Amino acid sequence: MNKKANAYSVGIVCVGSELLFHTLNTNIHIATRLLEMRGFEVNFNVVVCDKSEEIKKAINFCLENSEIVVVSGGLGPTFDDVTRESVAELTGRNLVFSEEIWREIQERFKERRIVNVPELNKKQAMIIEGGVILSNKSGTAPGIRLEYMGRIIFLLPGPPREFEEMLTNYVLPDIEKNYGIAQNTVCNGFGIAGEPEAVVDEKTKNLRERIISLGGQWTILALPYLIELWLKLPKTKQFLFAEVESSLREIFEDSFLGTNGISIQEALMIMLKERKLVCAFAESCTGGLAGHLITEIPGSSECFNGSFVVYSNRLKKKILKVPKTVLRKFGAVSEEVAIAMAKGARKYGKADISLSITGIAGPSGATEEKPIGLVWMAVAISNHFFETRKFYFSGSRSAIKLRAALAGIDFLRRVIMRNLS
Amino acid sequence: MNKKANAYSVGIVCVGSELLFHTLNTNIHIATRLLEMRGFEVNFNVVVCDKSEEIKKAINFCLENSEIVVVSGGLGPTFDDVTRESVAELTGRNLVFSEEIWREIQERFKERRIVNVPELNKKQAMIIEGGVILSNKSGTAPGIRLEYMGRIIFLLPGPPREFEEMLTNYVLPDIEKNYGIAQNTVCNGFGIAGEPEAVVDEKTKNLRERIISLGGQWTILALPYLIELWLKLPKTKQFLFAEVESSLREIFEDSFLGTNGISIQEALMIMLKERKLVCAFAESCTGGLAGHLITEIPGSSECFNGSFVVYSNRLKKKILKVPKTVLRKFGAVSEEVAIAMAKGARKYGKADISLSITGIAGPSGATEEKPIGLVWMAVAISNHFFETRKFYFSGSRSAIKLRAALAGIDFLRRVIMRNLS
Repeated sequence: MNKKANAYSVGIVCVGSELLFHTLNTNIHIATRLLEMRGFEVNFNVVVCDKSEEIKKAINFCLENSEIVVVSGGLGPTFDDVTRESVAELTGRNLVFSEEIWREIQERFKERRIVNVPELNKKQAMIIEGGVILSNKSGTAPGIRLEYMGRIIFLLPGPPREFEEMLTNYVLPDIEKNYGIAQNTVCNGFGIAGEPEAVVDEKTKNLRERIISLGGQWTILALPYLIELWLKLPKTKQFLFAEVESSLREIFEDSFLGTNGISIQEALMIMLKERKLVCAFAESCTGGLAGHLITEIPGSSECFNGSFVVYSNRLKKKILKVPKTVLRKFGAVSEEVAIAMAKGARKYGKADISLSITGIAGPSGATEEKPIGLVWMAVAISNHFFETRKFYFSGSRSAIKLRAALAGIDFLRRVIMRNLS
Repeated sequence: MNKKANAYSVGIVCVGSELLFHTLNTNIHIATRLLEMRGFEVNFNVVVCDKSEEIKKAINFCLENSEIVVVSGGLGPTFDDVTRESVAELTGRNLVFSEEIWREIQERFKERRIVNVPELNKKQAMIIEGGVILSNKSGTAPGIRLEYMGRIIFLLPGPPREFEEMLTNYVLPDIEKNYGIAQNTVCNGFGIAGEPEAVVDEKTKNLRERIISLGGQWTILALPYLIELWLKLPKTKQFLFAEVESSLREIFEDSFLGTNGISIQEALMIMLKERKLVCAFAESCTGGLAGHLITEIPGSSECFNGSFVVYSNRLKKKILKVPKTVLRKFGAVSEEVAIAMAKGARKYGKADISLSITGIAGPSGATEEKPIGLVWMAVAISNHFFETRKFYFSGSRSAIKLRAALAGIDFLRRVIMRNLS
């Protein structure tokens, strides 16, 4: 601890199950993203299993190299949760029982209509001496804030949603208060839908070189059906973001989604709300995923009536009135069926505009003419006006479903953009 | 390096982009899974950015604690790839130019119809003195195998596909030859749905102690609406898995899902297929997520006709014929509406059995009587026989949706189990 750590540096230690600690990567992802966006530098991420000796080694390693150490996981009530005890040992402090936390835990069980709180949960009411309790609104394990040898240690619960909530509510405001200067860096994420990573990289080469020459950082991130460009700039050069935005808009036209890490779904929602339009979906191979993705966004009920998940051909006929002859002649994965599905979804979904998705997600169901990954989509704006698109996606069943749902949502956005101002 | 590391222990260091090194989690995931399944113990995973000092610290930390260190990333041709140089410095060895690698790189470019190999790529033909070249079939960066102070270090390329290929082709056979005994471990995962983690822990205490006393490892993992128990046993004690399974079945009855890391959705699918039943869903607050989850499983079309995502009340009336009076009197989130939705889904979905889900996912839409997280569900087996359940879920919109969809799928499984043999 004698060594000076980098300024504004954060070390993250994720503690978790020995056999399956890849599940903890979600927390690394969340923490790195949130912290780096605020200008902090996450210099080490260590994932470690629920063993006291190894937890202590990992935290110690981060304490040597980072000013702030965020630890996730191992605060649960069960035998294998040993983070609290390990940190108490590491810092040479006692664990003391907190009546306040115990009351909160009992409250939480009451809300869930559970009368007898398991005795095991008493373990979660133990706090490290000198630590500050960070109460957990979404779970039973409270967090703890600890100062030690000039560093700040945060112990947060492992479940990703609780971890994210507490990182946002406690850690960020706290460290921003203590290390205000980190705010001298600003970060922004620009979204481009449906373009290959290499194409985006090539088309933005000059822009990238200019930004880097001016002291900025430039990162390209390939997500399903979406390329994100993340830029970090000194606050004094913040004005460059507007320049980047207008350049990207010019280069990528309809494919440019927006700033601040906007998602494909959010871009569609904005477009629908601006035009006061309501949409409905008809989904076959995506099985409800398109509906799920749009309803992840609060307020989606304003512009989304629902989705007809017509997985079987029988429902395609019965519910969406896809003509039997069309199904027989062209097959369920065809332009004609996509059009009939979109028309049905628009009519029976009482919507202004509709999207249909029908394809072959695999692993079976392919023919020579219709390979795995073939997906037909249609958007209907009126009973007589529609657009269609054909896609070939590669990858697993799950990957094909996800890309198809996102490509569908993006296709709907593009059709609205071009036709409904 | 004087300290003895745990036997069969592996440390993983992932090197990558400063802004977004969460993208490297894929490699942690791949390596941990492959290694743990073979009986090796991955005791530390460190993710670090492309900075020489930090790479050296991370590798050093793993060398101190693990017998084998696998490093991914930073072997590319560009200015920011510094792993090779950092490891040479750390181990005090020289970098030497390898004609063999240079020829291989030129070959690879020729295959891609590129005549002039960029001079930059010469960097990739540098090898650490005393290291063994691991040739890369899918990319330009070769790997390197190095022995150092009684440890083995593997440097592998960062792109996940190349990393996985080289881990499988070189690292696993190599370390299995050197540490053969690791193959003597077997692993199994048991699923229990809808029980709190602490309850599962308490009820399995005796079983756990018995397994641990017999040399096994026992891990409890809390996933949304699902608790997984993962056991590792010496191969000679493999017969204990059957004993654990029958004990868990006895303890948890309907809540026990099965073995081999079975999911809630898979357990439902098995039940439906065994009984040759077809189901349909009616979803409101989950927005299509229940349909998405079941269609993630190949072959779901055999037992899933579709889902009516009736997000708006209008569609609840128009599509599922939920009576206007019922909606007005009890509200969309009520037992009565859940029943009417399930009946509608069964009838119009042409199904033997149906599930409906209606709830308040938040952040808005709550009233004093109906808080965020309240979800009503119904399962209809005939037009006259149905069961209902009320749940209170906590957490974010996204968490409530996910738990509601999984609880619904599990509720359907339980109703089938009890009523349809």
